[in-house]
Amino acid sequence: MGSIPTQITYTAFKGSKSGAVVKTEVTRDGVGPNEVLLENQYSGLCGTDEHFAHNDIVLGHEGVGIVKEIGRDVKSLKVGDRVGIGFVRGGCGYCTSCLTGYNWFCTESPNNYGTHDTNTATWSTHCVLPPTRLAKIPSSIPSEFAGPLMCAGQTVWLPLARTDVRPWHTVGVVGVGGLGHLAIQFASKMGCNVVVFSGTASKKEEAFRLGASEFYTAEDLGKEGMKRHFVDHLLVTTSQLPDWSVYEPLLSNQSHIFPLTISASDISISAMTLVGREITIHGLCASTMTQVNQMLEFAARHKIRPMIEEFEMSESGIRDAMGRLEGGKLRYRAVLRVVR
Amino acid sequence: MGSIPTQITYTAFKGSKSGAVVKTEVTRDGVGPNEVLLENQYSGLCGTDEHFAHNDIVLGHEGVGIVKEIGRDVKSLKVGDRVGIGFVRGGCGYCTSCLTGYNWFCTESPNNYGTHDTNTATWSTHCVLPPTRLAKIPSSIPSEFAGPLMCAGQTVWLPLARTDVRPWHTVGVVGVGGLGHLAIQFASKMGCNVVVFSGTASKKEEAFRLGASEFYTAEDLGKEGMKRHFVDHLLVTTSQLPDWSVYEPLLSNQSHIFPLTISASDISISAMTLVGREITIHGLCASTMTQVNQMLEFAARHKIRPMIEEFEMSESGIRDAMGRLEGGKLRYRAVLRVVR
Repeated sequence: MGSIPTQITYTAFKGSKSGAVVKTEVTRDGVGPNEVLLENQYSGLCGTDEHFAHNDIVLGHEGVGIVKEIGRDVKSLKVGDRVGIGFVRGGCGYCTSCLTGYNWFCTESPNNYGTHDTNTATWSTHCVLPPTRLAKIPSSIPSEFAGPLMCAGQTVWLPLARTDVRPWHTVGVVGVGGLGHLAIQFASKMGCNVVVFSGTASKKEEAFRLGASEFYTAEDLGKEGMKRHFVDHLLVTTSQLPDWSVYEPLLSNQSHIFPLTISASDISISAMTLVGREITIHGLCASTMTQVNQMLEFAARHKIRPMIEEFEMSESGIRDAMGRLEGGKLRYRAVLRVVR
Repeated sequence: MGSIPTQITYTAFKGSKSGAVVKTEVTRDGVGPNEVLLENQYSGLCGTDEHFAHNDIVLGHEGVGIVKEIGRDVKSLKVGDRVGIGFVRGGCGYCTSCLTGYNWFCTESPNNYGTHDTNTATWSTHCVLPPTRLAKIPSSIPSEFAGPLMCAGQTVWLPLARTDVRPWHTVGVVGVGGLGHLAIQFASKMGCNVVVFSGTASKKEEAFRLGASEFYTAEDLGKEGMKRHFVDHLLVTTSQLPDWSVYEPLLSNQSHIFPLTISASDISISAMTLVGREITIHGLCASTMTQVNQMLEFAARHKIRPMIEEFEMSESGIRDAMGRLEGGKLRYRAVLRVVR
């Protein structure tokens, strides 16, 4: 174990009132008995980070790092392990939510990004976390691609792993972005028929390369003769919720809708359609650790990788990355490279 | 088989422009090769009949009758059988929906109450139907109680039979009426903890007798110290959809909402709540024939019966029954007795 310092100091990037991300030094307690110290390598940039950029907290929640120190009670990891970090970082381990793997609903001692232990996160040179929710990254996945799998990846994995999506179903993906471009790959590699809906035709070829077999723009949907009742599962990956009435004619009876992003608006759908056509709307937020590990193994085996744009983890690098995200220009996920 | 007349005539009750139900004589083709003639005994009155009362169609869709004649290809029923009739009355038998039991979504030859073959229904002395969706009524269920099970019963059976409701879960029932008073009995006999939400305290004792273990009025819900996050499945049986924000604090994380009536309004819920708390909203409309049979067997075994008010199947009897339903006075389901 070596000698563990009682205090550690690292460089981190925090939100601020204005929304500008500022570089800072964080000093905090060193590794406790059931914690590990990570040297961060990369971190993705997600819409949720934008939400939190006005708060005085260390940002970042889809990272990858190397275990540098472990507390005396840590058995599941060893120094040198390469691990992924998501937005669920811990839990008490003994409440009903933790016992069933749903640590983010922990009622005793939750540790979720943005609301708990806000001095540790992935836009930083180091972080200190319990081992519970750290995932070993399969060796075939390079570090720069690992981060986005820990949030965007696990998010699109949710409908595919936790519900009744089957390989012979048609999966509709609304939006080709940070989440959508991964959803296409996962669903396609599961054998599903993948249909993509995008605001613009410019992503058509890329959607096909990622595994889509059909592609429709907003304009196509309004056309005479557009197919009806053929989408079994609709994964909505856009940051704004769509006009549901546009998609209702495309949905099969007994189909499933998955709004995958957290939006401030309401989901509103006609009761007649919902009940009469037996449609289900699923709220899903995070994966259990078992599901994260299965997702990583699946991604490794099928060579599923996020398409990334790399930026330096610095005030200016972060500013550039956030500008590309806000401008809808990213293809498709920004990754910040830790600079020491 | 005997000699089957090529035309038959029976007395039936139809809707009309004004909404008044009028007695009429219907003449139609007699029993075809794959049809049966039923002598109706009783029929329930459901909110959907009110919806259709302005249409020129024979009304009624939760009935019970005796098989009087069978067509030459009918193998599943014999003369004298006592059968229940619901709002799904047939289907082609070979489309995907029919092959999986979901005949009401039949794409080739649907036969649903109110929209197909509108000269035959249960507010009549006789009806002619295919045998596919007729359910043999267990002998221990008296005929006057059988009708309401065929619509109200199968509707509240849906969430309990087709989703993940388990005996150790807490089931919330919103509304003690035609549907709600059956939902309480079914869920209670399945071993669930049943919590009832009612507009008025007047139904409290009855709810407990039916199997509820907790009872709250609208007033209770607003009180300081009201329990939170304890309802795993919320069955909404009221004809008007509730204000969801009242129920959100009561719902467990990862809970399920079932709006069980078809209403003209929208279902609108905060995306933050739905996704962040992993809530699922299920649209469910009808039971497969297997599920109907399982429901009837369960009702028979556990002595689950609707509480009924009996009326004569006549213009005045129907008027009285509909008046009680519209006035919210029924305890809890009206049943019309066929008069010959």
